[in-house]
Amino acid sequence: MAIPDPTKERLLRIFRILEGADNDYTSAKLEALTGWPSHTIRKDISCLAKHELTEDDAERSSAGTFSGYSPRTLVPLIKEALGLDRRIKFCVAGLGRLGSAYLNLDSAALGEFELAAGFDTNVNRVEILKSPVPLYPAHKMGEVIQRFGIEIALLCVPAEAAQSAAEKLTTAGIRGILNFAPAIITVPPEIHVRNVYVRDELMALSMNI
Amino acid sequence: MAIPDPTKERLLRIFRILEGADNDYTSAKLEALTGWPSHTIRKDISCLAKHELTEDDAERSSAGTFSGYSPRTLVPLIKEALGLDRRIKFCVAGLGRLGSAYLNLDSAALGEFELAAGFDTNVNRVEILKSPVPLYPAHKMGEVIQRFGIEIALLCVPAEAAQSAAEKLTTAGIRGILNFAPAIITVPPEIHVRNVYVRDELMALSMNI
Repeated sequence: MAIPDPTKERLLRIFRILEGADNDYTSAKLEALTGWPSHTIRKDISCLAKHELTEDDAERSSAGTFSGYSPRTLVPLIKEALGLDRRIKFCVAGLGRLGSAYLNLDSAALGEFELAAGFDTNVNRVEILKSPVPLYPAHKMGEVIQRFGIEIALLCVPAEAAQSAAEKLTTAGIRGILNFAPAIITVPPEIHVRNVYVRDELMALSMNI
Repeated sequence: MAIPDPTKERLLRIFRILEGADNDYTSAKLEALTGWPSHTIRKDISCLAKHELTEDDAERSSAGTFSGYSPRTLVPLIKEALGLDRRIKFCVAGLGRLGSAYLNLDSAALGEFELAAGFDTNVNRVEILKSPVPLYPAHKMGEVIQRFGIEIALLCVPAEAAQSAAEKLTTAGIRGILNFAPAIITVPPEIHVRNVYVRDELMALSMNI
């Protein structure tokens, strides 16, 4: 049973609130934190299809003293529903300033995601750069991505190289691209793309100041 | 008249679609591109309160051959409504790998945003680093942010330094923070924060693959 995309987005946000939380959260408390109506939140959570998770049932079973959804119960269920209950390997494509920065991210900031490799078309850069993971020239993408089971690429190449790099990653069998290059990339529909454009983030922030 | 936040978010997305477009877009075409109901889109656009922008009026005036909203008309109206019709200065706080990368962003990727300065607590780094804009030790934040009229900071410090850097920026008079540090920062409610967590982006991408 497929969960609708807007529900997935909300479940992800709820997961991020509950993760690391000690206390239970009612849907009213989640409404206050997210701005979404509590009935929408209850409906989203009921998508997880665990009978004991509906507020009504919980309320009945505990004689009217429902303290909310328990992070300990809900977090693993959301992870499972969103397919995040596993290690997911990613690589960095393009080892300029931004790519090098992402090569050296603190793994504590990455959770279930594991950096497995870096790629650059510049063989010299691949040989010289210090890195916590192995680096390869771009022409080895296909082989390395298959061998390591890498699912996602952080695309950190310059704008003018983005489309061709995205195509190489597609041919290499990548399943998702996080696009940091300030360019629109076109890939087959089965490859998922998420753009992280600094200007978009700046605009979204500026709308409110 | 304040525009509701969800409407702002949608208008920003519509702006990004129309910007650089040549042809007119009907609300039906925008629905296909965004997934939002066309009546919601028409209502959002009517918030811009320009009589000539409603589809009905346009339809009447052109004898039933409405070709859609014109990017040339709509883009400036949205920019104005969202407060994006001006140059907005920002700075980079924290000049490690990620901060240096953002110091050297191609200005073509920044649109209306102008990088004005960089800051780091490490005076040595401030003196040595190559940069297209002036760099300052962190204790000069207050003076420099006021003098240049800097409104936004890209927070690129390590997680453990994020809260204290955010407080310094607040004292210095910043209005918005784009937080790239993998840490939750707490600032007064009048300071707007937007978190750009790589793990969150990876999770949002992974949900769909």
